Amino acid sequence: MWNNIPTKDTIKSTHERIKPFIHKTPVLSCKAINDTANADLYFKCENFQKVGAFKFRGATNALLSLTDEEKQKGVVTHSSGNHAQALALAAKMNNCRAYIVMPENAPSVKRNAVIGYGAEVITCKPTLQAREETSEKVIQDIGATFIHPYNDYRIIAGQATSAKELINDIQGLDFIIAPVGGGGLLSGTALSAHYFSPNTRVVAAEPEGANDAYRSFKNKAFIPSENPQTICDGLLTSLGDKTFDIIIKHVNNIYTVSDDEIVAAMRLVWERMKIVIEPSSATTLAVVIKNPQVFAGQKIGVIFSGGNVDLSKLPF
Amino acid sequence: MWNNIPTKDTIKSTHERIKPFIHKTPVLSCKAINDTANADLYFKCENFQKVGAFKFRGATNALLSLTDEEKQKGVVTHSSGNHAQALALAAKMNNCRAYIVMPENAPSVKRNAVIGYGAEVITCKPTLQAREETSEKVIQDIGATFIHPYNDYRIIAGQATSAKELINDIQGLDFIIAPVGGGGLLSGTALSAHYFSPNTRVVAAEPEGANDAYRSFKNKAFIPSENPQTICDGLLTSLGDKTFDIIIKHVNNIYTVSDDEIVAAMRLVWERMKIVIEPSSATTLAVVIKNPQVFAGQKIGVIFSGGNVDLSKLPF
Repeated sequence: MWNNIPTKDTIKSTHERIKPFIHKTPVLSCKAINDTANADLYFKCENFQKVGAFKFRGATNALLSLTDEEKQKGVVTHSSGNHAQALALAAKMNNCRAYIVMPENAPSVKRNAVIGYGAEVITCKPTLQAREETSEKVIQDIGATFIHPYNDYRIIAGQATSAKELINDIQGLDFIIAPVGGGGLLSGTALSAHYFSPNTRVVAAEPEGANDAYRSFKNKAFIPSENPQTICDGLLTSLGDKTFDIIIKHVNNIYTVSDDEIVAAMRLVWERMKIVIEPSSATTLAVVIKNPQVFAGQKIGVIFSGGNVDLSKLPF
Repeated sequence: MWNNIPTKDTIKSTHERIKPFIHKTPVLSCKAINDTANADLYFKCENFQKVGAFKFRGATNALLSLTDEEKQKGVVTHSSGNHAQALALAAKMNNCRAYIVMPENAPSVKRNAVIGYGAEVITCKPTLQAREETSEKVIQDIGATFIHPYNDYRIIAGQATSAKELINDIQGLDFIIAPVGGGGLLSGTALSAHYFSPNTRVVAAEPEGANDAYRSFKNKAFIPSENPQTICDGLLTSLGDKTFDIIIKHVNNIYTVSDDEIVAAMRLVWERMKIVIEPSSATTLAVVIKNPQVFAGQKIGVIFSGGNVDLSKLPF
C-alpha cells in the first residue's frame, strides 16, 4: 500500500484513519486582504492544527500504519521543527517512543515543544548529512522505525488530507497554493486536487533563498538545496525523489518570493486576520500579491502551513 | 429608549439591528490552556470582530440609532484607539462623517487604521480633560453628535451582544470574565448574563496600574483613574456614571493583575492558540490563572476584547 504513489482511495482511507486524531482546521477569509490581493482567497488554517502545523496529519498516518512490533521499538526522525513536534505527539498518543534528531540551530520554541511531548531530542549539526547519519545510528542501535519528514508515501497521503478538506469546503477553486520545502505538503496537495478537483491548478510558493524546488521544477531534474538562507526555517530542506516525481507531474508552477516580501505578507495576516502564522505560511500570500497577472480575480485556496514562531525573535 | 439602563428587550432588538453589520465571532477553546488554568475555558474572540475589537458592536448600534439629520452632521468621539476605529468604520458604512479626537501617544497602527476608514483625526494631549475639551469644540463648531466610548446606553447595549452570543453558544457557564476600562463591555456583559443566564456570575479583570474600577467597586463609590500606567492601552480610562451603576449592581467581583502576568497570558495565547490578542484581552486569562481558588474546575466564558497591537512594539 505504501510502495506506490497514493491513489484516490488511499487518500480517502488515510483521511478516515486520521480523522479521530486531527483537527478539521477552519477555512477563513479576510476582506481587507482580498482587497489588497485583488483576489478571492480562502485560507486553510493548518496553524490551528495540533502542534500548530499540517505535519501532524502525515505523522499521525505514519504512526497508525506501524505494526505493533514496530510501535514497541519506537520511531525516529530528523526535522527542522514541525515534523519533530508532530511525530512526538503522534507517538505519545499511540504509546510509542519517539527519538527526534534536531539541528542545533532549531528554534527553542520547537525544541521545547518536542521535549514537552515526551520525546527524546538528539542534537546534531545543521546539515542534511549530519541529520541522516545521526538518525541512522538510532535505527541501528535501538531498532526504531525511521519516519522521513516528507519523502514517504504515508506522510504524503496524510498531508494530502488538508487540501481534501479545503476542496470539500470550498467548491470551484481556480488555484490552490501551498509552500514547498521538502515537498510533502505540496505533493499531497497536488494529488488531492488531481483526484478531487481536477480543474483546480496547484502552484507552489518558495523563498528565493531556498529555491531548490523552483530550480528542479524548471530544469525537470532534481537539484538539491545548498546552503539555503531564508527566514522560513520550515522550508530549508530539498525535495525528495518521491515528492519530486509527484510535483513534476501534478504541479502547475512554482513561484519564488524574497524574505522581505514574506515578512510583509506575514505582517499583513497578523494585523488584519489576527492569527499567528509562521514565515513559511506567508510565502503563499506573498506569491499571490506579487503576481497579479496570474492571480488577480481568481478564486484561490491558500494553505497556511503552520503557526510556530519564536515570539522572542520576530522579524517586525 | 436610550435614557435608561437597557432592558432585556432593548438588548434583543439591538442585536437584531446590528446583526447585518457585525461578525458573529467564534468561540474557541484550547486544551493546553485549559490544562494550564485547570478550568474549562471558552474564549469569545472579539479580536476577530470588524476593526479587531468588540467596540464595533456599540459603535454600530449608536450609528444606527441616529436620525437622518444627525447623520448629516457627523459624529465625534475621543478614544485611545479601538472605539475610534469602530466609530470610523460604522460611520463610513452609514455614509456619515466621523471626527476622532485621539491622544498624541495613541499607537500608530490604530491612528492609521482610523485614517484608512476615512475619518478625520484631531490630535490632543493624552489627558481626559484635553480629550473632552477638543471634542466639545467639534460639537460646537460642526454640530456633530458626540458618541461617548462607553458611558452611553446605545454603546452598552451594543457591547452586551457579545456575551449574548456567547451565552447562546455555550450553555451553563459558571462565570463570564471580561476586561474593564471604561466599563462599556463589562456593564453590557453583566446585563446580558443577568437577562439571559442569571446563574452565571460576571467578574472583571483590570490591570493593577489602572485599577480605578477595582477601587470604585470595593469602595462602592466612583473613584476616577489618575495617571494610569499599564501596557493595556485600551484600559486607561475611568468608569462612567452609567457603567458604574450597572457594574455595582450586576458584577460579582473585580480582580487585578500585573503587567507581567498580562504579558505572560498574552504570550500563552499567541503561542498555543495561534491568535493575536491585545494586552487588554489577556487580563482575563491572567486573572483566571492567578486565582485557582476561585476558578479551578469552573466552566468559564472569557471575553477576548480585541486584537489590535502594534507589531513593532511587542512586549516579548
